[in-house]
Amino acid sequence: MQNHKESFSELRQDAVSGDWVVIATGRAKRPHAFVRKKKQWYQPKRTCPFENPQKSGNEDPVLVFYRDKTKKDWWLQVLPNKYPAFHSGLCPPEFPYGPYTRMEGVGFHEVVITRDHDRSFALLEDGEAEQVIRAYQERYLALMNEDCVKYISIIHNHGQEAGATIYHPHSQLIAIPVIPGDVMDSLKGASNYFKKHKHCVHCVMTDWERKEKKRIIYENESFIALCPFISRTAFEVVITPKTHSPHFEMINERDRVFFAKALRAVLRALWKGLKNPAYNYFIHTAPCEEKANYHFYHWHLELFPKTAIWAGFEIGTGIEISSIAPEDAAEFLKKQL
Amino acid sequence: MQNHKESFSELRQDAVSGDWVVIATGRAKRPHAFVRKKKQWYQPKRTCPFENPQKSGNEDPVLVFYRDKTKKDWWLQVLPNKYPAFHSGLCPPEFPYGPYTRMEGVGFHEVVITRDHDRSFALLEDGEAEQVIRAYQERYLALMNEDCVKYISIIHNHGQEAGATIYHPHSQLIAIPVIPGDVMDSLKGASNYFKKHKHCVHCVMTDWERKEKKRIIYENESFIALCPFISRTAFEVVITPKTHSPHFEMINERDRVFFAKALRAVLRALWKGLKNPAYNYFIHTAPCEEKANYHFYHWHLELFPKTAIWAGFEIGTGIEISSIAPEDAAEFLKKQL
Repeated sequence: MQNHKESFSELRQDAVSGDWVVIATGRAKRPHAFVRKKKQWYQPKRTCPFENPQKSGNEDPVLVFYRDKTKKDWWLQVLPNKYPAFHSGLCPPEFPYGPYTRMEGVGFHEVVITRDHDRSFALLEDGEAEQVIRAYQERYLALMNEDCVKYISIIHNHGQEAGATIYHPHSQLIAIPVIPGDVMDSLKGASNYFKKHKHCVHCVMTDWERKEKKRIIYENESFIALCPFISRTAFEVVITPKTHSPHFEMINERDRVFFAKALRAVLRALWKGLKNPAYNYFIHTAPCEEKANYHFYHWHLELFPKTAIWAGFEIGTGIEISSIAPEDAAEFLKKQL
Repeated sequence: MQNHKESFSELRQDAVSGDWVVIATGRAKRPHAFVRKKKQWYQPKRTCPFENPQKSGNEDPVLVFYRDKTKKDWWLQVLPNKYPAFHSGLCPPEFPYGPYTRMEGVGFHEVVITRDHDRSFALLEDGEAEQVIRAYQERYLALMNEDCVKYISIIHNHGQEAGATIYHPHSQLIAIPVIPGDVMDSLKGASNYFKKHKHCVHCVMTDWERKEKKRIIYENESFIALCPFISRTAFEVVITPKTHSPHFEMINERDRVFFAKALRAVLRALWKGLKNPAYNYFIHTAPCEEKANYHFYHWHLELFPKTAIWAGFEIGTGIEISSIAPEDAAEFLKKQL
């Protein structure tokens, strides 16, 4: 399906923690390419690889939404990533290597591009935002049926400080042959809580937040957005569906609209309040293999504005320090709605 | 001992993962302070808070090394951090709060400053580097006897991209009342491996690397520096003592010299090869309570050059992507020695 023979990536598993890393040398970077240099962040349209993706050497889209029924102008495209972190191939076996385990980095890496060079998600209309969510869902549903895909990560990086390498607004779907360590921890935590309390931990947390009323930013019929009590960074936001569901991809048309509204409201509040900050968001959803096993899980979106850099203490301990209380962050963001 | 009444910090524990976060509002940042602005990284000596720390409102040092026996000029100072992430106080109880646990952020946060404004660790002489390590050790030994200190993190952030907020070279010791999640994972992994194989996993990995000969950068009588097989970022380096020891603070005078030599050699290779990159390093050592329980652990230093930004995929999955193979990174760094 995808053809990226020039790229190679490999998964390697830590003998101590069991965590995986990816060595993706597809871009064939030489060591000198890592010498730091100031990069210009803004890319003008004429040099942007996503203004006319196919003319810029990208493959044909796997999904296109058009502006109108004439189908003349595209409004959203999903493309295979030109520099994928995972490449298509046969299901890879795990094999031991010294005290470690390694595996070929087989999977899918796609890019979701919206048409407008300068209109990031915060500046979309509700209907446009809903189309982005629909693209996530459609591609998720397609990729989850591919052989050996165990997990699909849906992410969006905005701004240079958040690690976006291309200015033009885009999201990514990354379908991988392992269940990531952090997702596994999240699943185990939710599973343990469910065994002990007979309730979904996310439902309990949301109910408690609704009673507390201190950290909620936005609410509509189906979704709630709040700065979590245990925020890992200043202005972190979690958007959770009010109805229990392990699987993002099972979202119905009505809730897709409410989800898009909630995400857009939060992004607009951040854009206004913090003047277009860089951010990362991702969807945490149950793995796509053995789906029936994850009834206790509750999918949600996590959004991390890049308000600080995780440094030695955070990397070395896994304990993140926020320099604003989530209660104050929520109050501030609420005012921007 | 330390007096930071103006600051407050709190530890909060995730109900799902069990991980802790810190809400440290000591700097009393208002939301508008998070609006992104370009900061000048280089600070001239005249505005540097560490050129004459006490004149800049810092407390008296808890440790001073002088240039010579006249004790006229200091060469290294350890100070209480003016904006601590943890403050001194009585041992805090954990208490439940809704589905979460919270605890006052009691602990110690110290800064280790070397005299020369423009000479970072890479540019120190071996003897000077050894003094920095000695300061880490002396303060570790002092702090570990304080009530309710369970873990001490020794970290160094260099460069703006690595989250350093002050240009003047400095390290930090952060003594905290919990064992961090990532450290706990590292301890559990090492403990499980020891139970299963009757060997220390770090000793096994080091032996294997010495046979492989592909990722070793530097070696002396007591320490070995290599780019780990499971590198979490490009040019990651781990420095491990060749003799099994769980506790950094038990290092003897002779090995302190070899450790300083190894660290300085690696930092100089990075400085030369990647033109003074930003980086974080930290020491992973066994917790300081119930020390006898950690015989299976092997202390080491981990160094993360800031060659890329961990974005949505890395934050959401815990799987980091390196765009250079550690084998190539090691070969490159070795050439810079």
